[in-house]
Amino acid sequence: MSNIAKKVSWSSRGDDRGERTPLLNGAEDVKYTRKDIVRSRPNEIPHNEKLLSLKYESLDYDNSENQLFLEEERRMSQMSFSCLEITRWVICGLIGFLTGLIACFIDIAVEYLAGVKYFVVKQNIEKFTELGGLSISLILWAVLNSAFVMVGGIIVAFFEPIAAGSGIPQIKCYLNGVKIPRVVRLKTLVIKVCGVICSVAGGLAVGKEGPMIHSGAVVAAGVSQGRSTSLKKDFRMFEYFRRDTEKRDFVSAGAAAGVSAAFGAPVGGVLFSLEEGASFWNQMLTWRIFFASMISTFTLNFFLSIYHGKPGDLSSPGLINFGRFDSDTMEYNLYEIPLFIIMGALGGLLGALFNLLNYWLTIFRIRYIHRPCLQVMEAMLVAAVTATVSFAMIYFSNDCQPLGEDHTEEYPLQFFCADGEYNTMATAFFNTPERSVRSLFHNPPGSYNPQTLGLFTLVYFFLAVWTYGLTVSAGVFIPSLLIGAAWGRLFGILLSSITTSQSIWADPGKYALIGAAAQLGGIVRMTLSLTVIMVEATGNVTYGFPIMLVLITAKIVGDYFVEGLYDIHIKLQSVPFLHWEAPATSHWLTAREVMSSPVTCFNRVEKVGTIVDVLSNTSTNHNGFPVVVHTIEEDEPGKICGLILRSQIIVLLKHKVFVERASSRLSQRKLALKDFRDAYPRFPPIQSIHVSQDERECMMDLTEFMNPTPYTVPQETSLPRVFKLFRALGLRHLVVVDNENMVVGLVTRKDLARYHLGKHGLEELQLAQT
Amino acid sequence: MSNIAKKVSWSSRGDDRGERTPLLNGAEDVKYTRKDIVRSRPNEIPHNEKLLSLKYESLDYDNSENQLFLEEERRMSQMSFSCLEITRWVICGLIGFLTGLIACFIDIAVEYLAGVKYFVVKQNIEKFTELGGLSISLILWAVLNSAFVMVGGIIVAFFEPIAAGSGIPQIKCYLNGVKIPRVVRLKTLVIKVCGVICSVAGGLAVGKEGPMIHSGAVVAAGVSQGRSTSLKKDFRMFEYFRRDTEKRDFVSAGAAAGVSAAFGAPVGGVLFSLEEGASFWNQMLTWRIFFASMISTFTLNFFLSIYHGKPGDLSSPGLINFGRFDSDTMEYNLYEIPLFIIMGALGGLLGALFNLLNYWLTIFRIRYIHRPCLQVMEAMLVAAVTATVSFAMIYFSNDCQPLGEDHTEEYPLQFFCADGEYNTMATAFFNTPERSVRSLFHNPPGSYNPQTLGLFTLVYFFLAVWTYGLTVSAGVFIPSLLIGAAWGRLFGILLSSITTSQSIWADPGKYALIGAAAQLGGIVRMTLSLTVIMVEATGNVTYGFPIMLVLITAKIVGDYFVEGLYDIHIKLQSVPFLHWEAPATSHWLTAREVMSSPVTCFNRVEKVGTIVDVLSNTSTNHNGFPVVVHTIEEDEPGKICGLILRSQIIVLLKHKVFVERASSRLSQRKLALKDFRDAYPRFPPIQSIHVSQDERECMMDLTEFMNPTPYTVPQETSLPRVFKLFRALGLRHLVVVDNENMVVGLVTRKDLARYHLGKHGLEELQLAQT
Repeated sequence: MSNIAKKVSWSSRGDDRGERTPLLNGAEDVKYTRKDIVRSRPNEIPHNEKLLSLKYESLDYDNSENQLFLEEERRMSQMSFSCLEITRWVICGLIGFLTGLIACFIDIAVEYLAGVKYFVVKQNIEKFTELGGLSISLILWAVLNSAFVMVGGIIVAFFEPIAAGSGIPQIKCYLNGVKIPRVVRLKTLVIKVCGVICSVAGGLAVGKEGPMIHSGAVVAAGVSQGRSTSLKKDFRMFEYFRRDTEKRDFVSAGAAAGVSAAFGAPVGGVLFSLEEGASFWNQMLTWRIFFASMISTFTLNFFLSIYHGKPGDLSSPGLINFGRFDSDTMEYNLYEIPLFIIMGALGGLLGALFNLLNYWLTIFRIRYIHRPCLQVMEAMLVAAVTATVSFAMIYFSNDCQPLGEDHTEEYPLQFFCADGEYNTMATAFFNTPERSVRSLFHNPPGSYNPQTLGLFTLVYFFLAVWTYGLTVSAGVFIPSLLIGAAWGRLFGILLSSITTSQSIWADPGKYALIGAAAQLGGIVRMTLSLTVIMVEATGNVTYGFPIMLVLITAKIVGDYFVEGLYDIHIKLQSVPFLHWEAPATSHWLTAREVMSSPVTCFNRVEKVGTIVDVLSNTSTNHNGFPVVVHTIEEDEPGKICGLILRSQIIVLLKHKVFVERASSRLSQRKLALKDFRDAYPRFPPIQSIHVSQDERECMMDLTEFMNPTPYTVPQETSLPRVFKLFRALGLRHLVVVDNENMVVGLVTRKDLARYHLGKHGLEELQLAQT
Repeated sequence: MSNIAKKVSWSSRGDDRGERTPLLNGAEDVKYTRKDIVRSRPNEIPHNEKLLSLKYESLDYDNSENQLFLEEERRMSQMSFSCLEITRWVICGLIGFLTGLIACFIDIAVEYLAGVKYFVVKQNIEKFTELGGLSISLILWAVLNSAFVMVGGIIVAFFEPIAAGSGIPQIKCYLNGVKIPRVVRLKTLVIKVCGVICSVAGGLAVGKEGPMIHSGAVVAAGVSQGRSTSLKKDFRMFEYFRRDTEKRDFVSAGAAAGVSAAFGAPVGGVLFSLEEGASFWNQMLTWRIFFASMISTFTLNFFLSIYHGKPGDLSSPGLINFGRFDSDTMEYNLYEIPLFIIMGALGGLLGALFNLLNYWLTIFRIRYIHRPCLQVMEAMLVAAVTATVSFAMIYFSNDCQPLGEDHTEEYPLQFFCADGEYNTMATAFFNTPERSVRSLFHNPPGSYNPQTLGLFTLVYFFLAVWTYGLTVSAGVFIPSLLIGAAWGRLFGILLSSITTSQSIWADPGKYALIGAAAQLGGIVRMTLSLTVIMVEATGNVTYGFPIMLVLITAKIVGDYFVEGLYDIHIKLQSVPFLHWEAPATSHWLTAREVMSSPVTCFNRVEKVGTIVDVLSNTSTNHNGFPVVVHTIEEDEPGKICGLILRSQIIVLLKHKVFVERASSRLSQRKLALKDFRDAYPRFPPIQSIHVSQDERECMMDLTEFMNPTPYTVPQETSLPRVFKLFRALGLRHLVVVDNENMVVGLVTRKDLARYHLGKHGLEELQLAQT
C-alpha cells in the first residue's frame, strides 16, 4: 500500500489555538482544501499502521429521520410496533438456528475429514514402522495436509480474500461502524465455511472457532434483510430492517450466536458482542442477542446429539469440548493465587511475543506476499512444514506411556514404543488441536514428561505464529489455548517436582487450564467475555476467579509491550477504528481543529448538474452533505437545515426526482422509503447513472429526503466531547456550526480516529488513499 | 401525597402539530408559564403512578466542560491520567473488599442470631411437646420474632426510611440519573445492615441478598469520594472523582459487588449493573466493575472460610448457598423443554399475581400507613403472624419422614413424629428461608409429600406478598425463590406420579430449581443477569438454557399483565425514570412539544440581584440555566452561548465572585475546581447564602464557569431522537434552539419521562409537586 499522503509542516500544540488557521507551507504538492491536508511528523514512518486509510467508509448507525421516515413511523400503530418486535425475535431465533446448523456442519465435516486423514496416515505409519522407510509416511502426511490447505487457500485467495483469517477483526470493525467491503456477503460465508474445514483438516495450527463468529454475523446480515443480493432473490420480507442500524443489531446477535456455538457459551457470546462491538447498551437488544445465542447452542447440541447417537441429550458443550471438569477435583487454595498471577504474567509476555512476531510477519506478508498464488503456496508450505515438524518431533521423541484402559486418545501411535504403550508426543501432534487441548486438561498426572511438553510448546508456538495471517480461514483461539495448556501443564509438573508434598499440586490439568487462559488472554486481550467463555466451556464456575485474575494480569502485562492481536491487524489495515474514549490528553483539541473544512454543502433546492458534478468528483468522494439555507449571499457559508447522504441522492437521481419533471409529468409516483430500502445496501455508483444535459438543468428538492435535524456541535467543543457524542450515537457525520448556525465544518470518523496516544503523547495518523 | 397539579384541556394528537401553540384555557388556576402546565386526561386518576413527581432532581451525568475543567484537563500529563486510572482500579478493589466484608458480617450475624433463636424455640418446643401446652412455645416464637422485627422496624422507620425494602429500585433510579435523597449516605448503610439482620433473624419472609446491592452502592459512593460528609471527615483523597459522572461509575461497581457477594456471582453482578443501570457501555469501566465484583466474592469467601474453620478454601459460593448441583445428576432432555416453558408461564402468572397484590397493598400502605409507629406495628404484626402461621402449619401437619444419616436439616423438629423421624413442614418453616430453598433443591426424592408443599406454597406466597414493602430492610429474592422452589418441586413430584417410568423424573430438585427461577423471573423480570446469577449460584452451567427459557417465558407472560415489582415501586414513587427507548409511537412528538418554555436564561455577565431572585423563586426551582448573548433587544430570546447549573452559581455566590469586588480587591483568589468539588454533593440552599444590598448591584461573569458547549437540538427534532441523545449521554438539560441558535426551550428528564405507552396508546403523566 503506497503512501500517497501529502506532508505539511507538523502543526505543533500551539497556544494560539483559538485563532489559529491551518498553517500551510507553499509546497506544490499541497492542495489547499483541508480535507486533503495531512499533518504528520516530519520524519517518514514506514509502517502503515501509522496511516489511516481513506478507502473505508462508515456505516450509518444514526437513523436518517427524514420526512418519509417520520411519516411511516407516524402511520404505524402500536400493534405494528409489537409485530416488528416479534419479527425481531423470530429473526434472532432463525439466526441462532442457522448459525448452530453451520457449526454442526463444520464440526461433522472436520471430524470426518480429519478422521479419514489420521486413519490413513496411522495405517501407513504402522506399516512402515515395522518395514522401515518412514519417510514415505512423512511424505504422505505432508502431501495430504498440503492438499487440504491448497483447496482452502485457493478458494480464499482467488475467490474471496476477505474470508481469510478468523474474521473477528472484521466483525469488530463492522460493529464499530466501519464498512468493510464484502464482509457480510453470502459468498464470503460459503468460502469461509469450506475454507475452515480445509485448514483444520489440513492439520494447520488453527481452530474452527473464530470463523464461527464471522459466519454467524454473515448469517445475521443475510437473514435479517429477507433477501440475498448475491442470489438475486428477494423474499419481500423484513423490509423494515433494511438499514444499517437494524442490520448492526442483528449482526451483533449473529456474532454472539457464533461464539455461543463455538464454545457452548451463550452468555460469553453476549458479552463478546458487547465487549467487542456495542456502544449503546439496550436491554431489549441484549435479550434478543441472548436468545439468538441460546438457540444457537441448543441447535448445535441437538443435531450433534443425533449425530452422536444420543438424541435429545442436550448437556454437551459447543464446538470446542474441554471435557467436564469435576467440582471435586477442581479446587484451589489461597496460596495458589500468587502462582496464578505469575502464570498470567507469563501468558502476557508470551502473548506479546506472539503478537510482535506475527506483526513483523504480517508486515513482511503485506510487502512481499500479496499475489494470490504466492499466498496459496505459502499456506501449502506451512502445512507441509507443520506435518514435517510434527513427524520429526514424534520420531525423535522417546517418551512412551502405557496405554490406559480408559485412554482418551483417538489415534494412539505406538511408533517405536513397546507394545501396550504409546508415544505421548503424538497425542499432542498427531491429533486435531482441540483433542490435544482436552488431553492436556484431563490426562492423569504423569501422562506427559516435561521435555515433551517444553519442546512441544516451543515448536507449536512458532508454528502458530507463522500460521496466523495465512490466506486461509482459521481461528487463533485453539492454538493459543493449546500452547498455554502445554506450558501450563509443564508449570504444574515442575511445581509438583520441586515441592515435597505431591498431593497439593497433584493435578497438572488445573495448571493446563490456567495456562491456556493466560496464553489466550495474552494474545487476544479480552477479559470479561473470555472469562465467561472459559467458565462456560469448562462447565465449572469454581475457576472463575483465578481465570479472571490471570486474564487481567495477562492483559496488563501484554498491553505494556504491544496491543492485542486483533487490534494489531486492524491497525495494519489502517482501519479508522473508534475506540471507547478519546485519548485522555486530547482535551486541548476542539472541533475547530479536528473538523474538515470547507464543507461541500447543497441548497435545499439544488441544480441537478451541480449535484452530479459534486458526486462525480473522485478526489473528494464525500458521503454526506449538509443542506443549507443562504441568508445573505451565496459565498458565505449557509445556515444548516439538514443533512443528506450520497446514497439518498443516488436513489433520487436514479428515480429522476426532479422538480421540473414532477410538474410536467404529474403521473410520476412519489418516492417512498421502499425505493431507498430496495437499493440498500448496494447503492449504484454515480457513474452508472445517466443524467442528460436537459436534466442537468432541472432542480432537485431535497427537503423531503434530508435529515432535517442532524446533530450539531459548536466549534469550541472539545475533542472528548465530540468523540463521546459521535461514539454513543454511532454517527457518521457531525456538523460543526458557528454561533449563527452556519456550517463551518464536518467531523467524520477519520477526523476522530486519527488521534491516538503514542509513546510521545498524542499523535496524529496520516491519511492515505489506499 | 396530594395531587396539586393543575389541569388544562388535554391537547389531543393534532394534525396542526407544526404550528400549534399550547392551547390553554383561561381558567384561573392555570399559570401561563409552560413549566407548570400539566396535560392530563380529563377524568381524575386517583393512583399516583399516573403522576410524575417534581421533587426528584436529576444527576449530572454529562460533564460540565467549563474553562476551569478544560484548563485542569489540559494541564494534566499522560502520566497523571494513568495514575487516575490506577486510582480507579484501587478504589474498585476497595469497594469490592468492603462490600465483601459487609456481606460477611451480615451472614455471620444472621446465622448467629437465627441460630440462637431457633435453638431456644426448638428446646422449648421439645419440652412442651411432651408436657403439652405448646401454645407457650408459639408465644415465645412470636415474641422473639416480633422483638427482632421491632428493632429493625424502629431504626428504619424513625431514623432512615430510605433504608426500607431491598434498595434495588432506589439504586436503579440512581444509576438512571435520578437523585434520590439520602440514598447513598453512610447512615443509610448502617441502618440498612442492622435492619436486614433484624428482619432475617426475625423470621420474616425476606432475604438478605437485595440489601447487599444497596450496601455495595453506598460503600462505593462513600469510598470513591475520599471523605464522609456525615462524619465530617475529609481524607483529601480522590478529589478528582467528586462529580456525578465518576461517582455513578463507582456506584455501578458497588452494586455489582453487592450482587456478587450476595449470590457468589461476579459475572451476574456485572450484568446486573449493566441490565439495570448502564446506558453507555464502556469497556474499561466494565472491567473495573468486574474487578470489584471478583474482589467482593473473594473477600467474602476468604473470611467465611476462616469463620467456618477451613481457611483458604475459596471454592464456596456467596451469601446464598444453593448447594452444589452435580453434573452427573443434572441432565435434561428434549421432551422436558415444553415442561420448562409451562413452568415459566406459571411463574409469570404467579409473579404477576404477586406483583398485583403487592401493588394494591402498597397503595393501601401509602394512603393509610404512613406514620412511623404504625409502620413498625405492621412489621411486628407480620412477624407475629408469620410465626403463628408457621407454627400452625407445623402443628397440623402429620407429614413425618425418617431422619436420614446425612440430613441437611439444621434444626429437625420431631414434634409428634415417631422417634428418628422429623416433621417435614418444619424443614420449610422452621428455618431461615435460604436453608429451606437448599433443602427443596437437594433433599432426596420422597422427602416432601405433595400436600405439604402445596400448603406451604400457598401460605408462604401470601406471607411474602404481605412482607414486601414493610418498613424493614429486606430483599424479595429469597422468598421468591422459596415459593418457586416449593411449587416447582411439587410440579416435579406430580409429574413423576402421573408417569409410569419413575426414573426419568426422578429428581424433583431439578424442578425445584426451574420453579425457583420461574417465580423469581415472574416477579422481578430480569432475564440475562438473573440467568447468569442462577447459573453461578448453582455452580453448574448445564441448566443455562432451561433457566433462560423459563425466565424469558416468565417475563413475557408476566409483562402481559403487570410490570415487574421494582418498576411498580418506582412508578408508585412517581420517579421520572427514563426507560431504554422512547415509546414506539412517539414519533409524532417533537422537541417543540415536549420542551418547557419560556426558559429562564442568564446573560454572560449578569446582575447578582437578578441571579439571587431567580434562584430564590421557589415556584420554579430550575436547576440549569442557558447563558445567552442578546444580539438585538433584551426582550427577544438570546443566542445560546453556554449552560450553567444552579449548584455552580451557588458556589459562585458563596465565594462572592463578583466583578466589582474582583477589581477592588485584587488579592481575591481565583475560584478553582477544588471549590466546586469541596461543596459537592451537598450544595447549600440559596436561602443560606447572604447577599447584601450592595452586592446585589454587582455583576457576575459566568463565562469561565458555564459549560460553553451544551448539546442543543432544533425544535423539529422528534421525541425518539431527543430521547436517544438524552439517554445515551446521560444529560440533565438539553437546550432547544431555533435556526438562529436562539434559546426557545429546555428539555429535562421530566419532559421525557412523562410520555409512556398505556393501554390506549401514548399517554402523558401529570406532574405533581410531591
